[in-house]
Amino acid sequence: MFIRFALTADLQFSRDLTPEAVLAAGDTVQEANEVLFRRGVPAEAEDEQIGKITEWSAHDSVISLAIESGPYTRAHDALFRFRKLIAQAMGRHRLGLREITVRSFSVEIPGHIPDEAIPKLPFIRSVSSHAESVRIDLACSATDLENRVPDRIVKLIEEKKEAALYGGKTEHWELVFESGKRERIFEGNPTEEMLARGWIKHGASRGQWIFAPQAVALFRAFERIVVEEIIRPLGFSEMIFPKLVPWEVWMRSGHAKGVYPEIYYVCTPKTRDPSYWEDIADYFKVTGEVPVEMIRDRLDGPIGGMCYAQCPPFWPFVQGETLANDCLPIRVFDRSGTSHRYESGGIHGIERVDEFHRIEILWLGTAEQTIETANRLHETYTRVFEDLMELEWRSARVTPWFMAQEGMLGESGSADIGTRDYEALLPYSNSWLEFQNVSVNGDKYPKGFNVKIQSGADCWSGCSGIGLERWTAAFLAQKGFDTAKWPEAVARLVDEPKEIFRFL
Amino acid sequence: MFIRFALTADLQFSRDLTPEAVLAAGDTVQEANEVLFRRGVPAEAEDEQIGKITEWSAHDSVISLAIESGPYTRAHDALFRFRKLIAQAMGRHRLGLREITVRSFSVEIPGHIPDEAIPKLPFIRSVSSHAESVRIDLACSATDLENRVPDRIVKLIEEKKEAALYGGKTEHWELVFESGKRERIFEGNPTEEMLARGWIKHGASRGQWIFAPQAVALFRAFERIVVEEIIRPLGFSEMIFPKLVPWEVWMRSGHAKGVYPEIYYVCTPKTRDPSYWEDIADYFKVTGEVPVEMIRDRLDGPIGGMCYAQCPPFWPFVQGETLANDCLPIRVFDRSGTSHRYESGGIHGIERVDEFHRIEILWLGTAEQTIETANRLHETYTRVFEDLMELEWRSARVTPWFMAQEGMLGESGSADIGTRDYEALLPYSNSWLEFQNVSVNGDKYPKGFNVKIQSGADCWSGCSGIGLERWTAAFLAQKGFDTAKWPEAVARLVDEPKEIFRFL
Ligand SMILES: Nc1ncnc2c1ncn2[C@@H]1O[C@H](COP(=O)(O)OP(=O)(O)OP(=O)(O)O)[C@@H](O)[C@H]1O
Ligand SMILES: Nc1ncnc2c1ncn2[C@@H]1O[C@H](COP(=O)(O)OP(=O)(O)OP(=O)(O)O)[C@@H](O)[C@H]1O
Ligand SMILES: [Mg+2]
Ligand SMILES: [Mg+2]
Ligand SMILES: [Zn+2]
Ligand SMILES: [Zn+2]
Repeated sequence: MFIRFALTADLQFSRDLTPEAVLAAGDTVQEANEVLFRRGVPAEAEDEQIGKITEWSAHDSVISLAIESGPYTRAHDALFRFRKLIAQAMGRHRLGLREITVRSFSVEIPGHIPDEAIPKLPFIRSVSSHAESVRIDLACSATDLENRVPDRIVKLIEEKKEAALYGGKTEHWELVFESGKRERIFEGNPTEEMLARGWIKHGASRGQWIFAPQAVALFRAFERIVVEEIIRPLGFSEMIFPKLVPWEVWMRSGHAKGVYPEIYYVCTPKTRDPSYWEDIADYFKVTGEVPVEMIRDRLDGPIGGMCYAQCPPFWPFVQGETLANDCLPIRVFDRSGTSHRYESGGIHGIERVDEFHRIEILWLGTAEQTIETANRLHETYTRVFEDLMELEWRSARVTPWFMAQEGMLGESGSADIGTRDYEALLPYSNSWLEFQNVSVNGDKYPKGFNVKIQSGADCWSGCSGIGLERWTAAFLAQKGFDTAKWPEAVARLVDEPKEIFRFL
Repeated sequence: MFIRFALTADLQFSRDLTPEAVLAAGDTVQEANEVLFRRGVPAEAEDEQIGKITEWSAHDSVISLAIESGPYTRAHDALFRFRKLIAQAMGRHRLGLREITVRSFSVEIPGHIPDEAIPKLPFIRSVSSHAESVRIDLACSATDLENRVPDRIVKLIEEKKEAALYGGKTEHWELVFESGKRERIFEGNPTEEMLARGWIKHGASRGQWIFAPQAVALFRAFERIVVEEIIRPLGFSEMIFPKLVPWEVWMRSGHAKGVYPEIYYVCTPKTRDPSYWEDIADYFKVTGEVPVEMIRDRLDGPIGGMCYAQCPPFWPFVQGETLANDCLPIRVFDRSGTSHRYESGGIHGIERVDEFHRIEILWLGTAEQTIETANRLHETYTRVFEDLMELEWRSARVTPWFMAQEGMLGESGSADIGTRDYEALLPYSNSWLEFQNVSVNGDKYPKGFNVKIQSGADCWSGCSGIGLERWTAAFLAQKGFDTAKWPEAVARLVDEPKEIFRFL
């Protein structure tokens, strides 16, 4: 069995068809079926697999069509190929093609399709499931068909079918490196200890901390290690990536495919005219309450969200450009602001927060250059965690399943594409914490943002997110709060913690 | 003439009043009028200025009241004083007070009140303006009256009347210091020049830039000057202030009184259950468009906004605390992220953007300590702008009129309270740019967040916002792009700009 498409559509012309025009239309249909629809179709394709006008008629100013196809010259493709041909033919009879109305569209997908693989979308009018296929009636305009909505729905159903097979398994995990065991110095929960010592306090928003100088000193020490050991030797330059991310960026980076549950969304005022907002301010002044519902009605958007992954908003810098060979590989980093994720509720320590601080390292170039940079990073990170921070850690190759799904593995010889997670042991809970990662993203971003290389070689990119909260959590969980017991490479960068605040 | 309040209300009891209870109620009304309502009222107050029950009656289980007042024991205050007394009196007759229904409430404000001074609020049922007064009928529940809604409306009308007098004048401006003239080195627009040199590119969102390494090098040079010349010598410690600001913070900081037109609002997902968002993701996959309206319906909030002023989210760190004398003055700073303002549209350079980077300096202590720190800052800033950056600049005392209005000037001997703006000349446009400021905020924040000092002295605070985009715009506008012509103190901190990117 093969996939089948079927549609009926009306072609509206500028006036009634003359008998000569009707004759010419008949010839055009025949030409389409015999020549036009066969173009580009492999020779071995069977007749029923190829798009065909199975019925047609002309009434007044309208030509009505029924088209069926298998996988080749799909019914909607056939419709648009035919549109061109018939417009020319009728033009000779001084008839202009005005509009195409799609009256029905259906697709029949072979194989067993589980219910959860059928998307819930306004385009889907009805679904009838059979043992060995599913038939879907779509409500699509001609524009939807031109935008290849049916093809994308078919692709989506295939993805969902595969996802249903993966089940709960979201990541493939494969150990790459494991450090030796380290002496147990501390068994406590670092967040609780930091709280008790006044190093951190809860911010006013969910999953948010205010960091006192003692905690920040540690963040900055780690930042210095990253700069001195990794960023400077490997020649990364500092940039500033934006922190408000509009949809246009996430549409190209691919995040629009699924990041919705974890986003802090951003909306803009409908106007910044103060008089438009005066009664809102007055309401607060009079009641002491902010009228959230009233405000909601005066916002546009959401236009996007707060920084989630740190690298996508870099890409407009190179969007649409061709990079000179001799400036590659490009190596940059950003540490200019916060990332925000609507994480699952409940109390976590500083290691899983809604607002966090990350150094994002990013590089791009040819595939070889990109892989080579990732390898250099793995080496330097290993030295930092082994020799400087003396951590008990491991690294693992993980494959987010969206990658598998998007065919980013397999095809392009890409055992090299994927993410390496770095995990540290948290003795207090005897669990492992991902405290940073290194990803080779293949051509995902350059493709999405249309970036090319002068030589014509594929452009690849990679990134590495260094989470300062997570480095701190991992370090303190293993090394505790007695600075005398800290590894020298860290201790030398941190002054003895000072109490700036003293509360009664 | 004086302000007048009048209300009618029904007090609902648990069952019908007995004749004895009605008699007792009459006595209670008399006691209230003669004794209770006069408590705390100045001796010289005239009779008609004091709250009085002018009519009352009892039917079945209800006592109905009419209360009138001038400025003393206002009608609604009288109502709640009476509630206590009558509840006791009726209790003796085994009658419980169940509920108070406010049937009408009006306030008459003397003087000429311009129309624009009347707020548009759901509480305001009708307004009748007279030459020498305005009478406002309010729709208020008993809870609204307890929350002092009428008093706040009166205060608001007075503020608005004053604001109408100020007219367009939003700030008082008074020169404090003016540097000498400097040699003209450059006459161009620094933003255009940075764009041409590839130092910056537009980000994907409104008023947003992506900064390339050459620009960031300058940001970091200024940051080093601030750290070495100001932060370290004056003993400020680095903290990390949150960057997502929920309403609770802006309610206490006072920003909820009027910041609405310029906020980037933040909304949260109604749930982070992926299945709730699946069709949104599917819609994007099928159409290539993000369905903004569908998303909108699935958001909660706005819960607040992105960082606007940088210091308010610090305050929950000390909220509700009493600070030990010997830890004062506290001096901290934050440079951990971006600020966002929905600025007026059109094209501005990097000096007026929607997303910017600022070092925020904050201090608190007694009034003397707070003023002293501000003065030290003025001195060091002066040295930095005069001797190190060699700018043509001036500073001015500015009084945002909300300060004047909120009575923050005047009363507390507070020529010291207010803001000093630092402005730099932009030769290309021959205009002055505020590139940073220093504010002494008096007890505004400590009061809002309920912070006290051990000694009992008033707690004051101050802050200074150093805008890196604005320092950069001011510096480049005056000194140009030839590093050989830059003042040594800056040039020594910046490597010769390197081109990381080369586009074809
Ligand atoms: N909620 C968070 N709190 C603190 N740091 C975080 C958080 N989420 C991500 N990070 C940091 O950002 C880095 C890269 O983000 P990434 O998307 O890979 O994390 P993640 O896979 O979502 O992590 P996890 O599986 O623990 O949620 C992480 O390695 C971590 O250092
Ligand atoms: N839109 C902006 N772009 C860049 N920097 C800004 C912007 N708004 C404020 N800043 C920086 O933050 C500092 C403090 O903010 P403040 O609220 O005093 O600015 P402001 O009074 O709104 O400035 P302006 O009157 O120019 O809009 C400013 O001195 C400036 O350095
Ligand atoms: Mg996560
Ligand atoms: Mg402004
Ligand atoms: Zn990344
Ligand atoms: Zn401030």
